[in-house]
Amino acid sequence: MLPRKLLAEFIGTAMLLAAVVGSGIMGVMLSPGNAGIALLANAAATAGALYVLIVLFGPISGAHFNPAVTLALALRGDLRAGDALAYVLVQVAAAVAGVLLAHAMFGLPLLQPGTHARSGAAQWLSEGVAAFGLLLAILLGSRQRPQAVAGLVASYIFAAYWFTASTSFANPAVTLARSLTQSFAGIRPSDVPGFVLAQLVGALCAVPVARWLSPTPQAPG
Amino acid sequence: MLPRKLLAEFIGTAMLLAAVVGSGIMGVMLSPGNAGIALLANAAATAGALYVLIVLFGPISGAHFNPAVTLALALRGDLRAGDALAYVLVQVAAAVAGVLLAHAMFGLPLLQPGTHARSGAAQWLSEGVAAFGLLLAILLGSRQRPQAVAGLVASYIFAAYWFTASTSFANPAVTLARSLTQSFAGIRPSDVPGFVLAQLVGALCAVPVARWLSPTPQAPG
Amino acid sequence: MLPRKLLAEFIGTAMLLAAVVGSGIMGVMLSPGNAGIALLANAAATAGALYVLIVLFGPISGAHFNPAVTLALALRGDLRAGDALAYVLVQVAAAVAGVLLAHAMFGLPLLQPGTHARSGAAQWLSEGVAAFGLLLAILLGSRQRPQAVAGLVASYIFAAYWFTASTSFANPAVTLARSLTQSFAGIRPSDVPGFVLAQLVGALCAVPVARWLSPTPQAPG
Amino acid sequence: MLPRKLLAEFIGTAMLLAAVVGSGIMGVMLSPGNAGIALLANAAATAGALYVLIVLFGPISGAHFNPAVTLALALRGDLRAGDALAYVLVQVAAAVAGVLLAHAMFGLPLLQPGTHARSGAAQWLSEGVAAFGLLLAILLGSRQRPQAVAGLVASYIFAAYWFTASTSFANPAVTLARSLTQSFAGIRPSDVPGFVLAQLVGALCAVPVARWLSPTPQAPG
Repeated sequence: MLPRKLLAEFIGTAMLLAAVVGSGIMGVMLSPGNAGIALLANAAATAGALYVLIVLFGPISGAHFNPAVTLALALRGDLRAGDALAYVLVQVAAAVAGVLLAHAMFGLPLLQPGTHARSGAAQWLSEGVAAFGLLLAILLGSRQRPQAVAGLVASYIFAAYWFTASTSFANPAVTLARSLTQSFAGIRPSDVPGFVLAQLVGALCAVPVARWLSPTPQAPG
Repeated sequence: MLPRKLLAEFIGTAMLLAAVVGSGIMGVMLSPGNAGIALLANAAATAGALYVLIVLFGPISGAHFNPAVTLALALRGDLRAGDALAYVLVQVAAAVAGVLLAHAMFGLPLLQPGTHARSGAAQWLSEGVAAFGLLLAILLGSRQRPQAVAGLVASYIFAAYWFTASTSFANPAVTLARSLTQSFAGIRPSDVPGFVLAQLVGALCAVPVARWLSPTPQAPG
Repeated sequence: MLPRKLLAEFIGTAMLLAAVVGSGIMGVMLSPGNAGIALLANAAATAGALYVLIVLFGPISGAHFNPAVTLALALRGDLRAGDALAYVLVQVAAAVAGVLLAHAMFGLPLLQPGTHARSGAAQWLSEGVAAFGLLLAILLGSRQRPQAVAGLVASYIFAAYWFTASTSFANPAVTLARSLTQSFAGIRPSDVPGFVLAQLVGALCAVPVARWLSPTPQAPG
Repeated sequence: MLPRKLLAEFIGTAMLLAAVVGSGIMGVMLSPGNAGIALLANAAATAGALYVLIVLFGPISGAHFNPAVTLALALRGDLRAGDALAYVLVQVAAAVAGVLLAHAMFGLPLLQPGTHARSGAAQWLSEGVAAFGLLLAILLGSRQRPQAVAGLVASYIFAAYWFTASTSFANPAVTLARSLTQSFAGIRPSDVPGFVLAQLVGALCAVPVARWLSPTPQAPG
């Protein structure tokens, strides 16, 4: 039932963004001179939220929360084009709503065009790698150990926040929404297209690799 | 057997509060100038304790430890009104006992009316969101993956400590008891009613949403 | 086969102490002015080691690593008196060996009588609470969800490092061995008897509580 | 099918090194004066990556990512000598590729001969202990609870980063590749042979111990 799926995508994506942006605000507020502590908290809170949201909403909508994931799964034939489009529109709207919610919870101006410059080849490479690994975790993980996908995505994103130079946005809807905050997790609006492009390239590269590594369906375990 | 259930609620809630308040005291003691480290420790210790206590006491009493949870489950028909009232009274008494225990373990005055101001619309919104998400995790989680509820609640609360401006009390008994400490986790007694009201509103909003998202019982998995 | 069990207890207890003491040394070395970071690392490394060691050695020896656990299980009839005595002797020897190993890995003097004063009613209450909770986690957890005991003990000890004023030794063999180090995790030799007594009292209190909360064997799940 | 296995080893080992080196760079960048925070992030990101990569690639190649593991399993007869050699060559090439990728993501010079001195008996003892424990976790863990091996290795390595003086390289391919970075995770090229020798000794000691502790195959659980 599509409306139920879209509601699941909406709540999940909005809560995810509230967690990403809110924990970044809290981290800088509590440890202003120490971005390492802020990123530890930001990464751990994001991972915790992702684990919960994927377990809760996975059986309903698949818990994509991410246009790059929706696109890759549509290409694999798991999703019809019309449904995929509806998913993406809802994800973008929900991501924006989540950022507004985080701002409201911290009593900040609701809309604040991002000022954090994130651009250049190293950043784009980072986003490509981040999205490639995320899709690999989803595509291979859902074959190797379906019950573990929530934990896989959470663990992967925690690690990728730290090992990529861009702190691993790895999600076009998230990237767009994070251009509406000037807090820790923000990005300059003009840097959004480069990030999104790199994410889509990385995600699409993962599709054939995952297919070749795991060509035949395996029994769920 | 109600007495056994009430004992489980008592020990669980008291240990939970000892963990919440004790780890806050230790965090500030060890890293006095850095609230980020204190909240990292506070959130992780709370999550660790929640996971253990829910696994241990879930099969006995349901491991509510929280009047908002008891209320929501009573509304869903899982609990009779009389039992629910007994649960709530025991939870409040146990929460206070847990705060006293934490103070005693750290050699502090046993009763210390809280001085930490936590008020205003942003804080109330935070508590509403925190309780909404917690109830969603419990209500949906117990349908989607019952064995994972302990981990879901622990992960959610870790994240919500960071992504809400109020550090996610999300529990009326906990809120009341934390008005008896001046340490890191404290709250001013006069701010308790606003928090409790916001928590109940958030929790009650989650009931119809969870019902709509998961209308029919599914096989446990 | 007793020798195999004793070898498992030896390796497990020695590795546990190496992890406890070694991570404390590393924490202070890397963040000398910030005991909060040292305790975060110490608690997380201890939890990680406990999880692994209990999974590996649980099916062989039960993975006690702790005279208080051995005593409680012997009282419950899981272990004969002679075997229990052998367990305890091996645990103490292994704990000392683990401390020496940690010192050797960091190039420190092998034996260094502890100087960290840990005494008084608040500390003893902390150790009693710590051991009570640990035994509850083991005794109830092994009935409610046997496969989860390793994770339960690890999560509990992480939390208890933070929520007790004594950082939760909760283990007589560990306490004795930690009197041989002057590093972060050390304790003054003269403070050992008080700690051990408090631990045994706490552990023994857990036995009837666990029995009353879970009187009949349940199906493993 | 060997090529598929080698591709799995390549992607897994390269991603692992990118995570190890990248998170070290990020840690020092964000918390320049506080190596404790950098090692917390480095250890947690490495553990997160290991968990994901072992779940994804374990069913394909066994997810060794480590010549010491390949050697120990070949000695146990799990792997033919020719395949083992191919594994090791691919692991070394992939480890180097992962370091280059980390440098590229952070916009650093691709090749930077390591300058971090890591030598002497205490360091070698650390590496021996680290590799002994890692192999024990893999060899015993794959018998006691095969589904948990990814979590066991991740938890062990997190702990061992902290409890060994060498931060637990425990992997000859990783050691060689980390001699190509001057960042946090680097090692002086001249110190590589000592580390590798200590790792192989530690790993080989684990083989008979694991065999004696668990002589007969057990039912997977």
